[in-house]
Amino acid sequence: LDNFLDALGPERVITAPGDTAPFCVDWTGRFRGATPAVLRPGTTEQVAAVVALCRHHGLALTPQGGNTGLVGGSVPLAGEIVLSLRDLDRLAPVDDVSGQVTVGAGASLAAVQGAATAAGWAYGVDFASRDRATIGGTIATNAGGLRVLRYGDTRAQVVAVEAVLGDGSIVSHLGGPTKDNTGYHLPSLLCGSEGTLGIVTATRLRLVPAASERATALLAFDSVERAVAAAGDLRRHVPTLEAAELMLAAGIGLVCRVTDRPPPPGPSAAAFLLVEAGDRLSPAAELAAGIEALTGVVHVTPVATDPVPAAALWRYREDHPAAVNTLGPPHKFDVSLPGDGLAAFVDEAPGIVAAVAPGATTWMWAHAVDGNVHVNVTGLAPDDDRVGDTLLRSVAARRGSISGEHGIGTAKRAWLHLNRTLAEIDAFRALKRALDPDGILNPNVLLPPPTAAPPLTTGTVRGVSG
Amino acid sequence: LDNFLDALGPERVITAPGDTAPFCVDWTGRFRGATPAVLRPGTTEQVAAVVALCRHHGLALTPQGGNTGLVGGSVPLAGEIVLSLRDLDRLAPVDDVSGQVTVGAGASLAAVQGAATAAGWAYGVDFASRDRATIGGTIATNAGGLRVLRYGDTRAQVVAVEAVLGDGSIVSHLGGPTKDNTGYHLPSLLCGSEGTLGIVTATRLRLVPAASERATALLAFDSVERAVAAAGDLRRHVPTLEAAELMLAAGIGLVCRVTDRPPPPGPSAAAFLLVEAGDRLSPAAELAAGIEALTGVVHVTPVATDPVPAAALWRYREDHPAAVNTLGPPHKFDVSLPGDGLAAFVDEAPGIVAAVAPGATTWMWAHAVDGNVHVNVTGLAPDDDRVGDTLLRSVAARRGSISGEHGIGTAKRAWLHLNRTLAEIDAFRALKRALDPDGILNPNVLLPPPTAAPPLTTGTVRGVSG
Repeated sequence: LDNFLDALGPERVITAPGDTAPFCVDWTGRFRGATPAVLRPGTTEQVAAVVALCRHHGLALTPQGGNTGLVGGSVPLAGEIVLSLRDLDRLAPVDDVSGQVTVGAGASLAAVQGAATAAGWAYGVDFASRDRATIGGTIATNAGGLRVLRYGDTRAQVVAVEAVLGDGSIVSHLGGPTKDNTGYHLPSLLCGSEGTLGIVTATRLRLVPAASERATALLAFDSVERAVAAAGDLRRHVPTLEAAELMLAAGIGLVCRVTDRPPPPGPSAAAFLLVEAGDRLSPAAELAAGIEALTGVVHVTPVATDPVPAAALWRYREDHPAAVNTLGPPHKFDVSLPGDGLAAFVDEAPGIVAAVAPGATTWMWAHAVDGNVHVNVTGLAPDDDRVGDTLLRSVAARRGSISGEHGIGTAKRAWLHLNRTLAEIDAFRALKRALDPDGILNPNVLLPPPTAAPPLTTGTVRGVSG
Repeated sequence: LDNFLDALGPERVITAPGDTAPFCVDWTGRFRGATPAVLRPGTTEQVAAVVALCRHHGLALTPQGGNTGLVGGSVPLAGEIVLSLRDLDRLAPVDDVSGQVTVGAGASLAAVQGAATAAGWAYGVDFASRDRATIGGTIATNAGGLRVLRYGDTRAQVVAVEAVLGDGSIVSHLGGPTKDNTGYHLPSLLCGSEGTLGIVTATRLRLVPAASERATALLAFDSVERAVAAAGDLRRHVPTLEAAELMLAAGIGLVCRVTDRPPPPGPSAAAFLLVEAGDRLSPAAELAAGIEALTGVVHVTPVATDPVPAAALWRYREDHPAAVNTLGPPHKFDVSLPGDGLAAFVDEAPGIVAAVAPGATTWMWAHAVDGNVHVNVTGLAPDDDRVGDTLLRSVAARRGSISGEHGIGTAKRAWLHLNRTLAEIDAFRALKRALDPDGILNPNVLLPPPTAAPPLTTGTVRGVSG
């Protein structure tokens, strides 16, 4: 501890249990741990000093950003030291010529979006916890969100990183040009590595041209299958499509009850798509032409080009999580299916859940084009993991991914073998040893325990979430 | 050799010098080597068998695709065994729902583009050697090209790979969904690794919505600086911009002389931008509005929406390499500059070259938005590398990259330290050891020799190209 105090100064070393407590629990309250110390370095060099000390003393570190994950990847569940990156929140001016910006790992997603917008650009990643999530956290988890279908995931935005590797060395390549093929691409490797290979302290992000006009509409369908098919068609025929969010009648009904809002206009329908296009000139015409060509649409709202009616449509989608939370803490599962498997899974998931938990209720919403569905189950005891085990196995059996957006964390590491072969996991372990030779960086995250048996199929396993 | 014959059968093992010769020289004729055998496996399992045999016997392998690189990365310069992937040219049907396609490493870029187009999609990467370059080669080098500014480089297209790692193991993850955060992203790590970590045998690529309408124009400017600034402005204000190719008066003049074609319409000018937008509805209006807002434009051709006049404009750009080749084999350098450095470098490069080679002539064209310039120098002896050394040092001093598109290969490995710190190169070596523990995969490519001294600054060094 004295070593950390020497390296960082007293104001950057937090040890009082009352002060460390907020760093020991995730935002859902599901994952709760304990730590001897929370370290808040203010520079990359201080991060390197911390890693060197931990390596010397054999101490495990859990890096932490905004702590908005869902898989227990950023909380000290095994008593790790917490390394909070939030103070590394520098925002450099936007580089207008290259359309890029250099930011610290602790800057919030919203701050980066704001800086981009102020400079006449946009940042390609967006999701609901934008005010709290840090850019470092979005890189560690390769965050997705609402606009992946147009701009790609976080990995597609990361031009360069500065990072401290597990051996304590600093690798920094922030000054480079757009096109740069000089060696292995560490930014892509660190992106999605969940703090297990290195600690990103700063990054250079690509920005995208800002869409000055937007067009938004809500489409209704008789079936999930038709809605998913329409999302695919629309994406293919409207290059400026930015979002295609799938909602179900039950979820819309719950949102309307909880928020005391009228149902969407039009006849009752089984499934809804909230779609949005963005461009400089004529996104409304582009979106309208795309919708015109669809089949199976029961009802379409007028295409909204003003922010006020567009925001009213978005609230149907954005109020889903809060509406479900009013029923008690849900079990949350973030999974993705191959394109042709999303509709069938959404139709069958309630039955899959009911088979192991008859009293539970299943709520879902999805990024339709990405095949990425957020499954929320209410009416379960907090420690009842039978549903999670069953759902993840069902997803894997359909060639889907047990993690669409949030990573593996601690919650899903025992299930990684459902998606990955032993050869792949061996390659992951070799990469881990290469960059973190003493295994001090988030050692209980992502990779399965070396001796792990395959998880059981009944309720004795813990922590499946997402 | 008998082992290879047993593993592959006689038709897949080429040993006669006359038959191996075409595999021992790159397409420019600059890099020439020799090999005891060219192996042409037909399956991933055969690739794995070859790697296992090479590992067992301590033999070095050079993977080879279409052999269209410029840095000597795919020819057996040190007597390596050549592993040609061209027979792995399977093309699966396009997956219309997810907008993805699975292809073998040996499929040509043109074949993938054609399959995408036939299915109503497009592939985001395009460049001149599309008929001969293989997809595996584009992944190994993270190929860029004409449309990076809209769709990103090859790394942004690679959803998944099947590959044989240096330890002989097969990692395969081709069936997955679009969003998949289950472990370290091997596709991104292998992309740009130049065959030194693993051998990609198949890949799953994302496709992009096809632009059914295109709009093309040629803009003239009084200075390179104004042309580069206009390219940046246009990119920012025309989200559907797909290309912004910079050309210079001298290059245009040479092309017109060699091809006996009239000069572009309008007054004489110092620099030209060939710009193209693609969309479903109104790219011509989008491009025209973007051009209208530019300053410093001397002349604009009518915006072409028909393929015939558009192709006539593109020929000014596409005939540049052949026109330069009529002056004798050029030294080719592919480098990139930060956004604000491209114009100054283009203005100063002829002087930098003339200072060390007074009789040489410098020709340049560039992907303007990416800061990526192709420098061609004619009038040099084939083995005169003073110009290369000087140019690469100049680029690095301007915070540019010594490789924009083609990688490091053998040609630039002694210069890698200009762009990369010792800590970064150490991390690269650790990754190399992790996935290729015996160092059998392209051992003379990308990483500098462990004992390399910094390169000399005068003409005793060899092989700088790109």
